[in-house]
Amino acid sequence: MKLATLKDGSRDGQLMVVSRDLKSAQLADGVARTLQRALDDWTFISPQLDDIYQELNRGGGRRRFDFDPQNCMAPLPRAFQWADGSAYVNHVELVRKARGAELPESFWEEPLMYQGGSDDFLGPTDDIVLAHEEWGIDFEAEVAVITDDVPMGATADQSLQRIRLLMLANDVSLRNLIPDELAKGFGFVQSKPATSFSPVAVTPDELGDAWKGGKVHLPLLSTWNDKLVGKPHAGVDMVFNFPQLIAHLAKSRNVRAGSIIGSGTVSNKDAKRGYSCIAEQRCLEMIAGGAPLTPFMAFGDTIRIEMLDDGKSVFGAIAQTLTQR
Amino acid sequence: MKLATLKDGSRDGQLMVVSRDLKSAQLADGVARTLQRALDDWTFISPQLDDIYQELNRGGGRRRFDFDPQNCMAPLPRAFQWADGSAYVNHVELVRKARGAELPESFWEEPLMYQGGSDDFLGPTDDIVLAHEEWGIDFEAEVAVITDDVPMGATADQSLQRIRLLMLANDVSLRNLIPDELAKGFGFVQSKPATSFSPVAVTPDELGDAWKGGKVHLPLLSTWNDKLVGKPHAGVDMVFNFPQLIAHLAKSRNVRAGSIIGSGTVSNKDAKRGYSCIAEQRCLEMIAGGAPLTPFMAFGDTIRIEMLDDGKSVFGAIAQTLTQR
Repeated sequence: MKLATLKDGSRDGQLMVVSRDLKSAQLADGVARTLQRALDDWTFISPQLDDIYQELNRGGGRRRFDFDPQNCMAPLPRAFQWADGSAYVNHVELVRKARGAELPESFWEEPLMYQGGSDDFLGPTDDIVLAHEEWGIDFEAEVAVITDDVPMGATADQSLQRIRLLMLANDVSLRNLIPDELAKGFGFVQSKPATSFSPVAVTPDELGDAWKGGKVHLPLLSTWNDKLVGKPHAGVDMVFNFPQLIAHLAKSRNVRAGSIIGSGTVSNKDAKRGYSCIAEQRCLEMIAGGAPLTPFMAFGDTIRIEMLDDGKSVFGAIAQTLTQR
Repeated sequence: MKLATLKDGSRDGQLMVVSRDLKSAQLADGVARTLQRALDDWTFISPQLDDIYQELNRGGGRRRFDFDPQNCMAPLPRAFQWADGSAYVNHVELVRKARGAELPESFWEEPLMYQGGSDDFLGPTDDIVLAHEEWGIDFEAEVAVITDDVPMGATADQSLQRIRLLMLANDVSLRNLIPDELAKGFGFVQSKPATSFSPVAVTPDELGDAWKGGKVHLPLLSTWNDKLVGKPHAGVDMVFNFPQLIAHLAKSRNVRAGSIIGSGTVSNKDAKRGYSCIAEQRCLEMIAGGAPLTPFMAFGDTIRIEMLDDGKSVFGAIAQTLTQR
């Protein structure tokens, strides 16, 4: 099943069911007005959404209309939780190496995770509006899951069963604001502006064999200013799978329905797969030549993040332009 | 105006208007079903809530009932943002001093702030349920505000005008999990379990002269196992006021309606005022005698957090028992 949220001027938008081929959609207003509402009572509501989905895929649906990602908000335009892991430890190791710092051994054994702002997400084609290029504006292509309720102390196995939906994310980072915030130890506040999400969120069964072991086994494509810069495989080098990330979060608290958990920047050890964030490329350049060559994003730049399965877009594309406030 | 949320088995509860003396309440269902709904359209909805409030205070209200904090969820049972500052730098300095670390000069100039989990808040009399005393369970008595929309880049003066409500918070901390998370730099995930809030949230005008300069000028009382252990003055030694904390958060992102911003543990330099968290007392003991004497909370312990104005409770009391999961 594929779900999206129609931009209607309200804070939470309206829930739509989207056909598998991303061509048609139908409002789910008779079933659940918003995606959060559906997640609040998933067992009861999701079968009704699935009825609409099956009908759309058969070419039916009396109230169907053309699906247009331009009219989408993030599947959850605001959420009660956004916790982002750093599951591709290669990414973390690279960044540390570039500044001559050792990677603590524990980073391979326990997930790094930060709590992100979740009150103001961007839709898949919304402009990224920021004030200063000097902040070091970077994209970060990620995979994310949305959970049902996960009780405190849940194991990874239990957490796996509570994953309801998957999405792509652009977890924009302000690289030049990060060092000061990292040094304080309190996590990211100013250095992580609004995160963007893919047009649709999909149930795990949509991925077929590509959803295995709590990971998505497909390449994640990042196209910066119309140039493909990254196609790392999301199923490779993911040191902690989604169930492990969720269990980490749930150690001392209940995780409630509608929580979004991110993978962190998708990154492969094989540098030929390119990059899902500019910082990584700059780190490679720094290690190779002593100085970074690739600049961060400039106003007017575009970024496109997508995942294809058999040539077909699974989540639709995040396709954004960076603009000055 | 005083607002609270009735526990009705749903995730968001039902919005109630509560009389100034905290004796009576009336459901606001004809106006707004939930507090978030009211905050989403505050300009339109708050005058209607105020009509109910005035009527309750006059002894009217056809549907009035006795107000009972036992039936309260947190005013916002879940929120789209919970960002907690450390505005009482004395607290931070003390903790550092106890472990022999210098306080960076910047901590006096720029607020420390962490993004907290906001998907699962505790009501004012809900048990604090945790798995292990060994985690070093501590209370933290704080003041918090709820904002309306605050645009990216807002100044402190602009932010002041966007504060809609004030509450008390118990930002429970797991002290023995903090050092590892601090060292990672990514902020608190496991070391900050569910936060609790006072029975009612109040509009700033309820505080009269005690709301001045973006601070609450009243003592905050913490009573641990029926013993008053702290009465620091929330208007003293608050290095960053609430508008400054909000402006810090809004530097690179929009802050949306219903965001909760905390003061951090209220702490005065005058040690005779006692403490709002056990860690601080242990630090003083460590500095004085080389070792902490006061243990962290034990299962069965109670904690009560309240603020009185002229002997009358402003927010009602947070009154919780720590229990084992």
